[in-house]
Amino acid sequence: MEEHTEKLPGEAYSKNIRARFWITGNHSGYIGIGRIELLENIEQYGSISQAAKNMGMSYKKAWKLIEELNHMYDEPLIVKVKGGKAGGGSELTTKGKQLIKDFKRIETKLSQFLQELSNGL
Amino acid sequence: MEEHTEKLPGEAYSKNIRARFWITGNHSGYIGIGRIELLENIEQYGSISQAAKNMGMSYKKAWKLIEELNHMYDEPLIVKVKGGKAGGGSELTTKGKQLIKDFKRIETKLSQFLQELSNGL
Repeated sequence: MEEHTEKLPGEAYSKNIRARFWITGNHSGYIGIGRIELLENIEQYGSISQAAKNMGMSYKKAWKLIEELNHMYDEPLIVKVKGGKAGGGSELTTKGKQLIKDFKRIETKLSQFLQELSNGL
Repeated sequence: MEEHTEKLPGEAYSKNIRARFWITGNHSGYIGIGRIELLENIEQYGSISQAAKNMGMSYKKAWKLIEELNHMYDEPLIVKVKGGKAGGGSELTTKGKQLIKDFKRIETKLSQFLQELSNGL
């Protein structure tokens, strides 16, 4: 097999099958690999602006995505926190943290699954 | 669960997980649900122009896709055929037909798999 140098869609979860998936909210919206990365960055930096900056994303874009993510379920995924030396920031709720775990779990299982199917091609 | 009226990415393979996948060629290129549809239309109509027309796709676009698809493997997926009252057309090779079957098989298994995972969300 030659190396693919072209731009290909999705993620290379297996040799012959690429894929992408999204978890849909109970109410509206969805979260895929890019939005999960935004959650992870918010968790890491405790700040939407720092998270956006680290991803090369505009603050406006990040804010708009968070608005959508916070309407997926009854409870929000990201909330503002007051206090601290930085004068407040943002953090993930339990639901937000759970969703990252769910996404990673599905990703691992999907990858294993597609590797099995890929061998049959 | 409320109905999603918004535009969502991928296909609704399960209640809470949407997905898309692509089979990559041994050499280059890839085929996803839209390109499989193109193959199916060529198989049905025996004509690239009719297939493109039926899909609301330009002939130029269809031709460009077929060029790419025919370079995925050692053998092509679509070949020209001469003769017949229409003065020749196009048809799928054995490999082309096999790829449709492989795609459908993966799609069915993926859907079952995602439904199981979706129940755990």
